[in-house]
Amino acid sequence: MENAFLYRTGSQYELDLSKAVHFVREGAFKTIALQLPEGLKTDGYNLARKIEAWTGATCIVSADPCFGACDLVDSDLSPMGVEAIIHIGHTRMPSVPTKLPTFFVPAPSTVDPLPAVERALPLLKGPVGLMTNPQHAPAIDAVIAFLESKGVKVYLGRGDRRLTFAGQVLGCNFTSAQEVEGEVNSFLFVGSGVFHPLGVAMGSKKPVIAANPFTGEVLDMADYRDRFLRQRYATIGRALDARTFGILVGTKIGQMRMDEVRRTKKLIESKGREAAVFALSNFDPSLVDIHPADAFVCTACPRIAIDDALRYKKPMLTPPELEIVLGVRAWENYEFDQFYG
Amino acid sequence: MENAFLYRTGSQYELDLSKAVHFVREGAFKTIALQLPEGLKTDGYNLARKIEAWTGATCIVSADPCFGACDLVDSDLSPMGVEAIIHIGHTRMPSVPTKLPTFFVPAPSTVDPLPAVERALPLLKGPVGLMTNPQHAPAIDAVIAFLESKGVKVYLGRGDRRLTFAGQVLGCNFTSAQEVEGEVNSFLFVGSGVFHPLGVAMGSKKPVIAANPFTGEVLDMADYRDRFLRQRYATIGRALDARTFGILVGTKIGQMRMDEVRRTKKLIESKGREAAVFALSNFDPSLVDIHPADAFVCTACPRIAIDDALRYKKPMLTPPELEIVLGVRAWENYEFDQFYG
Repeated sequence: MENAFLYRTGSQYELDLSKAVHFVREGAFKTIALQLPEGLKTDGYNLARKIEAWTGATCIVSADPCFGACDLVDSDLSPMGVEAIIHIGHTRMPSVPTKLPTFFVPAPSTVDPLPAVERALPLLKGPVGLMTNPQHAPAIDAVIAFLESKGVKVYLGRGDRRLTFAGQVLGCNFTSAQEVEGEVNSFLFVGSGVFHPLGVAMGSKKPVIAANPFTGEVLDMADYRDRFLRQRYATIGRALDARTFGILVGTKIGQMRMDEVRRTKKLIESKGREAAVFALSNFDPSLVDIHPADAFVCTACPRIAIDDALRYKKPMLTPPELEIVLGVRAWENYEFDQFYG
Repeated sequence: MENAFLYRTGSQYELDLSKAVHFVREGAFKTIALQLPEGLKTDGYNLARKIEAWTGATCIVSADPCFGACDLVDSDLSPMGVEAIIHIGHTRMPSVPTKLPTFFVPAPSTVDPLPAVERALPLLKGPVGLMTNPQHAPAIDAVIAFLESKGVKVYLGRGDRRLTFAGQVLGCNFTSAQEVEGEVNSFLFVGSGVFHPLGVAMGSKKPVIAANPFTGEVLDMADYRDRFLRQRYATIGRALDARTFGILVGTKIGQMRMDEVRRTKKLIESKGREAAVFALSNFDPSLVDIHPADAFVCTACPRIAIDDALRYKKPMLTPPELEIVLGVRAWENYEFDQFYG
């Protein structure tokens, strides 16, 4: 029988909303919020209209930027009468508490990853540590079967409680890779973008290969690793003489590391420098660079300091990079910033 | 005796923080947040450092944009351990509830408004309805005394519970002017910008004169009123054929008009058109124009539709403008959008 609650986006994703509709009907929620990742944002209008028709609830689209399950609108929208959330495309972080009932709807890609994986095969040394993100999670069994049919043994790490499924990797959490580091001779990341496999490469001496199902492109992260380190060393170098620091803390519930803020502030002051703390929901150079600090330390999403580095005029450091600036970590012990769950 | 808690900003404002310091010490708050208007944002770093030195509390600067007392970070920052707020430059809106103890610190201008008022004198017809904003509130008695010395009788309206002091006017509330409309023959606004006096002019047949203490400039709002109406009529005209609407609701506690959202949605649907609701904290064309709606209705701050109109590609309407689009309000009954308290 045809599933009446399927929604196909304009961009190679298929959403099955039948369980989400059941969740709203069972909960008898009168007003719910719909949160979408940036890539599916423009589907919000039509999805909300469909959810309203299917459930009878009022569906408010959260139009603020959303970059992960660390970023839940949750009780922020309670004053609007919002009783529950439908969150599309990201997976629940078990270590990040939700206040309102929240239903996570997967947004699996309709693209077959096997051609890209086949192209990656010559670069892999078995056993292989396999990693992916939620959009290719449903295809992970097929990837494993394919690799094993080629005689490659596969390991999936479970990782810590920030991760939802075995083999998952986030821009801020590579614990699933670290867990199997000792068992494997290389890593394979199935997905798009270089940020996730780069993070794995920064924490491992083993080769990390990225296979992009959308483009078919296969990358060896060794080149990216070196280029990345040179860029970050340059940023650290620019911050060496900073006397005043702005410590940035994210207001998003899964990015709010107050322990790290306190530790960082103490560390800066113990080295005879000074700092003030700035809270931000969405980070933008126009909201950061204006403050009279010589350099910034971002305790929120590590992608802010790393992916967006060139957008900021002033040096933007991660906490481990600050330690290098202050001389309490050796340059050769450079480490990616991780959020543990 | 010298007040040890005075802070002079780089931009003609003087802040007396002595009561705010007392508020933090008495409350024994360990962590507080500091919220500043955009014009004083860059003072946040130094102010936070001073407040920390004076109180021993950790002071987190809210670096998100803040355009009024409608926009309180309040309990949003509670998960960071924030126990109280110091809010600079805006005045408490009695009708907007705060969850955390909040201390409002005035940011009075150090500029004398009398030269500008003197220049406005020939354009005024007594009795005069006097209006200003918080930065010139401490000078209001001097302005009254000056006008009365010239034989001009002055009326100050108290307005509704969105306003803090008699004669106050906000971009979204002109009730203090409306209250004395019947007693006066003209209005005088003392302050900068045309938005506030324009709002008064839109609700009154009496002349509205604006005197800017910073520049000495004096404006008769009659010209602005006509130009403004032409611009808004053009926007309404562009939206006449819209079939699909995005209703925008602000997540800021003093801008969240869910009643207006529900009323607006019903109205749109009753006219055979359709709508979805979008929640936003900070409004930007990149977050709004992307959605597949023909036009938007903004139930948050009226300045978004009016001041920023040219930044948006799609027509952005206020709720009274939507009524004209849908044929339930006559064009000649054009009305400024107000938030009543």
